[in-house]
Amino acid sequence: VITVTTSVSFSAAHDYRREEWSDDKNRAVFGLCANPEGHGHNYRVLVTVSGPVDLETGMVINFDQLHPLLISCVTAELDHVYLNRQIPFFASRIPTLENVALYLWQRLSPEIAALGVTLTRIRVYEHDDLFVDYDGFLGETAAA
Amino acid sequence: VITVTTSVSFSAAHDYRREEWSDDKNRAVFGLCANPEGHGHNYRVLVTVSGPVDLETGMVINFDQLHPLLISCVTAELDHVYLNRQIPFFASRIPTLENVALYLWQRLSPEIAALGVTLTRIRVYEHDDLFVDYDGFLGETAAA
Amino acid sequence: VITVTTSVSFSAAHDYRREEWSDDKNRAVFGLCANPEGHGHNYRVLVTVSGPVDLETGMVINFDQLHPLLISCVTAELDHVYLNRQIPFFASRIPTLENVALYLWQRLSPEIAALGVTLTRIRVYEHDDLFVDYDGFLGETAAA
Amino acid sequence: VITVTTSVSFSAAHDYRREEWSDDKNRAVFGLCANPEGHGHNYRVLVTVSGPVDLETGMVINFDQLHPLLISCVTAELDHVYLNRQIPFFASRIPTLENVALYLWQRLSPEIAALGVTLTRIRVYEHDDLFVDYDGFLGETAAA
Amino acid sequence: VITVTTSVSFSAAHDYRREEWSDDKNRAVFGLCANPEGHGHNYRVLVTVSGPVDLETGMVINFDQLHPLLISCVTAELDHVYLNRQIPFFASRIPTLENVALYLWQRLSPEIAALGVTLTRIRVYEHDDLFVDYDGFLGETAAA
Amino acid sequence: VITVTTSVSFSAAHDYRREEWSDDKNRAVFGLCANPEGHGHNYRVLVTVSGPVDLETGMVINFDQLHPLLISCVTAELDHVYLNRQIPFFASRIPTLENVALYLWQRLSPEIAALGVTLTRIRVYEHDDLFVDYDGFLGETAAA
Repeated sequence: VITVTTSVSFSAAHDYRREEWSDDKNRAVFGLCANPEGHGHNYRVLVTVSGPVDLETGMVINFDQLHPLLISCVTAELDHVYLNRQIPFFASRIPTLENVALYLWQRLSPEIAALGVTLTRIRVYEHDDLFVDYDGFLGETAAA
Repeated sequence: VITVTTSVSFSAAHDYRREEWSDDKNRAVFGLCANPEGHGHNYRVLVTVSGPVDLETGMVINFDQLHPLLISCVTAELDHVYLNRQIPFFASRIPTLENVALYLWQRLSPEIAALGVTLTRIRVYEHDDLFVDYDGFLGETAAA
Repeated sequence: VITVTTSVSFSAAHDYRREEWSDDKNRAVFGLCANPEGHGHNYRVLVTVSGPVDLETGMVINFDQLHPLLISCVTAELDHVYLNRQIPFFASRIPTLENVALYLWQRLSPEIAALGVTLTRIRVYEHDDLFVDYDGFLGETAAA
Repeated sequence: VITVTTSVSFSAAHDYRREEWSDDKNRAVFGLCANPEGHGHNYRVLVTVSGPVDLETGMVINFDQLHPLLISCVTAELDHVYLNRQIPFFASRIPTLENVALYLWQRLSPEIAALGVTLTRIRVYEHDDLFVDYDGFLGETAAA
Repeated sequence: VITVTTSVSFSAAHDYRREEWSDDKNRAVFGLCANPEGHGHNYRVLVTVSGPVDLETGMVINFDQLHPLLISCVTAELDHVYLNRQIPFFASRIPTLENVALYLWQRLSPEIAALGVTLTRIRVYEHDDLFVDYDGFLGETAAA
Repeated sequence: VITVTTSVSFSAAHDYRREEWSDDKNRAVFGLCANPEGHGHNYRVLVTVSGPVDLETGMVINFDQLHPLLISCVTAELDHVYLNRQIPFFASRIPTLENVALYLWQRLSPEIAALGVTLTRIRVYEHDDLFVDYDGFLGETAAA
C-alpha cells in the first residue's frame, strides 16, 4: 500500500471555555486558553490518503484533484475565522486539536471518498512541537 | 561587531479594522483580516543584540539574563491575548506585523539597554513565508 | 521493535508524459508536469530499517554501514539526472512520487537485507508539503 | 484512536566506547564516536500518548499536565550532562539513539500512565536526518 | 526603516553548459551540473521590500497587492519550466543561483516600484544549505 | 554585490569554566554550562562570501571549490571533538558561540581569500533559536 500525504494551512482564533463553568473553573482547567477574548494559531494539516496506483498515471490520486478540494473544504472555510463563533461544529465542542482533527475527518472523508481514494489519517499541528493524529474508524461519518 | 540573536514566540488573535471606516471599506482594504470576530497566528520574534565580547565570559550577553527578559516582556504579556482588545498600543493602531515590530522595539529596547547591550534588530514572523525587520533609530524610545 | 530512519537527497529533472497520448491529453491529465522540456525537484528520501538491537553496540545498524549504501545506491545514481531519460525503470513508468518510492524500494531492499536488517518504509518528499510512504510487501523483490 | 504528540529537547555529551575493547577496536566499530573526550548533540524527543477524548475538555490529555512532566523527567535530568558519566543507565550501555529511546520509554511510561493515558511512541532525533522510533511493549517496565 | 519579506517558490530544470566548450571542459568546470539532459530543483525566493509605514493601514505594502504580483511574475513564468530552454534570459547565461537572482531583480524591481515601494533584496535558495543574496544597485534596470 | 551562502555542520562537546574561578563562581556565571563533565551540541555554520560574478560561469565561486574547503577546515577538524580539550584556540577561551564564530573567521578567511573571494559573514547556530553573526574586520587575521 502506498499513501500520499499533502498539507494545507489556516490561521484562526479560538478560546477554550465551557459556558456552564465559572470563569475560575475555566481558568483552572484551561489555563491561558480560557481568555474570553480569544487567541489564535497557524494550523498546519497533513492529509493522508491511500489507494491503488493507477498503472497509466503512476498515481494514487492526481494532486490537481486533491489540492482544490483542500482549498475549498479547509482554507476557504477555516482561514481567518474565529472557530468557536463561526464554525457550528465548535459551538458545543472545545476547539482543541483533537476536536479540530475530528472535524476535519468528517468534513473531508466523504469528499475524498468521492475521488475514489480513502482518507487514512489527519494530522493537525498547532505549532511544530504539538500535533495530534487521527486515523478514523468505520461508520464514523454516519454516526457524526 | 558580533551580534547575538535569540527567539521568543507567542500566539495571539487580532483583526484589521478601522472603526471610522464602513465594513465594506474594511473588507476592501484588509480582505479576510477584516473579519470582526478576529483570527490568529503563532508569532515568532527574533531579537538581535550587539556589544563587545566580554573577555572573561566570551559573551556579548549571558543568555541567562536575556532569556528571562524576553519571557517577561513578550511571552507573559502577548501570549494568548487578543492584541487589539488587550494591548493598549493596538487600541489605535492596526496590529500588522509592522506595528507589532514597532511595539516590540519600544517595549524591549530600554530593557535590553539596561543589560548593557544594544538592541539592533527585531524580526517578526507571522508564518515562515512572511516577516518584517525593524532596525530602529536613535531617539525613538523618547519619541514614542 | 525499534526502527532507525535516516535520509538521503537528490536533485533530478523529470516530466509526466505518455508517448501514446496526444499532447492535449498529456496536458489534460498531467497539467504543468506534461511540459516536454521537463522540470525538476529536490527529492528527500527517508529510509526506515528495523531489527534487533545488538547488545554490544546498542545499535540496530551501524550508521557507518548504512550511510555509504545510500550514497552509492541513491545519490550516485539519481542526483543530477533526468529520471525519464537516464534511469531505465522510468523509461516505461511515469516518474511520480509513487513510482520513485517503488523504484527505491526494489533498489534498496536487497542491499539493506544484506546488512542484516529489514527495510520497512520508504518515504519520498518532492517538497515539504507532498510526500508518499511505501511499506513494501513480501515477495516483491522477486516479482519486480 | 487519537494520539497527541509533543516534543522536548536536551543537549548532552556522550561517547561510544566499550571499556573491555582496545582503542583500535573501539575506533574500528564506532568511528569518530569513539573519541574518548566525547562529543555532543542537541536531542529532540517526540513523545506520543493516546487515550479517549474527554467529552468535557475535548482533550486526550491536558498539555498543562504533560509539559511539566517532560521538563522534570527529561530536560531537568538530561540537559547539559555527559550521558555515559552522569546517567547510571548509560554506565553499562552505549548511549546510542536506540538506547536513549529505551531509557526514555522506561523513564516516562509509568509517569505518563499515572496521568491516565498511555505512552505509545518515543521518537528521538540526533539531528534532522537521523532518528529512531520505539513503540514499547507490554510488561517492559517490569522487566527493565 | 521597516522591510517586509515574503516568499515564492518554483520548481524548474536546468543545466550548466557553454556550447562553445567541449563536453570535457563543461564537465571539468561544472561537474554534475553539466549533464546535458538536465536536472532540477525546488527554488525558494525571498523578496524584501521597504518603504514608509502607511499610518492608516499600518503597512509598508498590502500583502494582497504583493502576493498576486509574485504569482504572476515568478510562479506563472518559472514553475515547471526548463530554464535554459524556455526563459530567454538564460539562453546566453548559465542559470546559476547568481543569475537567477539577477533575473528576478530585473523582472520584479519595476513591478514592485509601480506599487510604490522599493525592492531591496532578492534571496534565492536552491536548497536549505545554499542561497545567494542580491541587493541590486541604482540604474541597473536601465542597463539590463 | 552578490553574496553566496552555504552551510556546514559539526557536533561537538564543550564546557564553560574558568580554571581560576571557584566551582561556585563558575556555576553562578555559566549556569548549567559549567558542568565539568561537559555537554554538547549540533552546530550549524553559515558561511557567506562575496565577489564579482564570473561572466563565463555565472558564479561568484564554484561550489565544488568551496564545499571541500569547508569539509576540511570545519567538519574534519571540529566534528566529534571536545572543543576545550582538543582545539588549542579554546584552551584559553570559553567556547561560546561568539568565540566559535571568531575561531571560524580566522580559520576560514585566509583560505577563502585564496580562492579569490572574500569572507563577509560567519553565522553559527547552537540551535534554531540561538545564533551569532560575525562580519569580521580588516587586519584581524594578522592580530589573531
